[in-house]
Amino acid sequence: MKFLKSCDANFKDELKILKNRGNLDMSKVMPIVQGIIDDVKARGDESLKEQNLKFDKHTKELEISSYEMKKAYDEISTNLKNALNLAYERIKTYHEKQLEKTWLHFDEYGSVLGQKVTPVDRAGLYIPGGKAAYPSSLLMNAIPAIVAGVKEIVVCTPAVGGEINNLLLAALYLLGIKKAFRIGGAGAIAAMAYGTNSIPKVDVITGPGNIFVATAKKMVFGDVNIDMIAGPSEIGVIADESVNPHHVAMDLLSQAEHDELASSFLVTPSEILANKVKDEIYKILPNLKRTEIATKSIENRAAIIVAKDMDETVELMNELAVEHLEIAMDSASDYLARIKHAGAIFLGHYTPEAMGDYLAGPNHTLPTGGTARFYSPLGVYNFIKKSSIISLNKTGFDALSRACMDLALAEGLEAHKLSVEVRTK
Amino acid sequence: MKFLKSCDANFKDELKILKNRGNLDMSKVMPIVQGIIDDVKARGDESLKEQNLKFDKHTKELEISSYEMKKAYDEISTNLKNALNLAYERIKTYHEKQLEKTWLHFDEYGSVLGQKVTPVDRAGLYIPGGKAAYPSSLLMNAIPAIVAGVKEIVVCTPAVGGEINNLLLAALYLLGIKKAFRIGGAGAIAAMAYGTNSIPKVDVITGPGNIFVATAKKMVFGDVNIDMIAGPSEIGVIADESVNPHHVAMDLLSQAEHDELASSFLVTPSEILANKVKDEIYKILPNLKRTEIATKSIENRAAIIVAKDMDETVELMNELAVEHLEIAMDSASDYLARIKHAGAIFLGHYTPEAMGDYLAGPNHTLPTGGTARFYSPLGVYNFIKKSSIISLNKTGFDALSRACMDLALAEGLEAHKLSVEVRTK
Repeated sequence: MKFLKSCDANFKDELKILKNRGNLDMSKVMPIVQGIIDDVKARGDESLKEQNLKFDKHTKELEISSYEMKKAYDEISTNLKNALNLAYERIKTYHEKQLEKTWLHFDEYGSVLGQKVTPVDRAGLYIPGGKAAYPSSLLMNAIPAIVAGVKEIVVCTPAVGGEINNLLLAALYLLGIKKAFRIGGAGAIAAMAYGTNSIPKVDVITGPGNIFVATAKKMVFGDVNIDMIAGPSEIGVIADESVNPHHVAMDLLSQAEHDELASSFLVTPSEILANKVKDEIYKILPNLKRTEIATKSIENRAAIIVAKDMDETVELMNELAVEHLEIAMDSASDYLARIKHAGAIFLGHYTPEAMGDYLAGPNHTLPTGGTARFYSPLGVYNFIKKSSIISLNKTGFDALSRACMDLALAEGLEAHKLSVEVRTK
Repeated sequence: MKFLKSCDANFKDELKILKNRGNLDMSKVMPIVQGIIDDVKARGDESLKEQNLKFDKHTKELEISSYEMKKAYDEISTNLKNALNLAYERIKTYHEKQLEKTWLHFDEYGSVLGQKVTPVDRAGLYIPGGKAAYPSSLLMNAIPAIVAGVKEIVVCTPAVGGEINNLLLAALYLLGIKKAFRIGGAGAIAAMAYGTNSIPKVDVITGPGNIFVATAKKMVFGDVNIDMIAGPSEIGVIADESVNPHHVAMDLLSQAEHDELASSFLVTPSEILANKVKDEIYKILPNLKRTEIATKSIENRAAIIVAKDMDETVELMNELAVEHLEIAMDSASDYLARIKHAGAIFLGHYTPEAMGDYLAGPNHTLPTGGTARFYSPLGVYNFIKKSSIISLNKTGFDALSRACMDLALAEGLEAHKLSVEVRTK
């Protein structure tokens, strides 16, 4: 891992490399993805079945039956059932706070202006399978859509070797999902964007995925809406000597175990803490079950940065604009106001990032690779859209008509002016 | 123009054609746009200057000086000054209602969950020039960014033949824009997305444009955020016999004069009104200043649809999901609840669409081509982003730790589980 000091001569260059961590090179997979999209548009379900045979080695039905979901839910342990239900309730409670209301505003003439909030008709959720299956991702994608009031929710997930994780099936049952399909990758995105005989065309597609999924989402954007284009997961920790270095090391490693390309950063004003955390990481690393993945991630994508002071620490973390930001120290919330760019902010000694992954309540689908500069966490707002409302009364119309006609004429749009003028008579 | 009845045998096919009006074929311009983006990335300002010479035939400075802005503002008529200021105030008042607040929520353990709202650091606004210059678009793009609290706003607009519309310059002055540049098309989008020596890299790019601009926006999406991918403008009118058919005709024509590719639809349960509006359109059309554009638009992209009744009228308009929707009839607001998909909804006899273009208050940058199914009007929300806040106290942590560890283990993420476990000791 990199061990940097902000006073190092080459620090600016090193920081630039860390800031550029998010560059997804789509150019190589783009032609492949375009081919898949075109094929799904042309041949629909037939194309999807072929993809399942080719990539996931199975010939099972596309649609996942409600029987399979119910059976899985009945089979999981009581502990897991309780955990799933607790997560469901907490995520739902949080996202309900995000619900926006239609509002009206009355101007000085009594004319009505407003904003109407409507859920999209259909949402498509992509849930990765493969290497690891994440039932928690299903909860995190489905619950905001349910809270938004989306009538029809479609789920696509790959069934590698024909198998789907039992806990994922159980979560489908718990959420009451009626339409779920065994299909992954770019094919799933194309199917939801354009529709097939089995899979309905949706309005919004959300959810994480590999480079093929991310590229497909970008390519269908505009024909449907998408949540964001996300890359590998990452964590940034701000800490001082008030923290237990073992805890920080564990949190960095919990990110590193996700993916060889996951990034973990510690920024601290304390060189003593920096060294302790580094030692802890290398002590724990070889004993982890996912040591191979975590080691590659730590070796190639992790950095510990020693900053001048807390001011510079916060500044550097804003520059990195990480997905998960922990401020693991006493009086962590003192720094909240100054955090500008982060997907989710975890405060204090009892908020390991893992809690946010499962059941703290906020969404775990978050902007990565520095895109927290402009993307938000997945939320209810991804599943609604707004319509402006304008209703002028005669008084309001009269008060505005002259200025409106002047502006229309100045822009050379005579018919615009006339559409106002005819009403003044 | 098309004159359709919902009871016609081929109506479903005709409706399908109208619904597919938004298909932007980017495949042809994509290689050109990619070339421009690569060139701007490689050669920065030099590339932009070359483009200005090639496309807009001028060699002026890239940056528009504050002197030019001030001079233009001083030169415009008092009427226009007043109109511009009235528009500014009304648009600002409306968009201030969209401001979202950071909120906190306390769970039953006293743990803190919340959502922090932060403006993006830099916004880039694209304002078309060329055929027509739209100072109103500058107001509509800049004001939500200002209200959101964006510190640095960058404007790009083409100076065809070196000239920029005086009212646009005056609006730049009124808005207090410090950084504006003479550059249009894909080059402007690339410059704002990746930065050059003169033009700062931004976080969000908004604003309308032609197919090159739309394609460039899609291609840089992910490296920056964008508002939406928009196509030609459009209007849909719902009316019955309570309306003056001349008014409806004028409103349809005010859309048609924008662009040969603009679409205008009337859906009504009254065949009598349908015929009257049609007659009015052809009576007014030849006398319009922009008759050539409007005639092509009306001939190729307009439709009058006679529906069975008001229920079907509303249903058809939801299927069309138009950018501007007028309900021009008595008790128009009775139908508001049932409108699901529309960029902006104009109610009653005194709300011609043109009022929304300039100074009713709501934004005139709206989703087109049926994308009102999933996009919202441009708003303050395009210039902010959210960060989740999670701060568990010891009690909250203890209450959740068991379930969190169970879920982490079920997903095979041991280090996630350990990061919780170490804190239970």
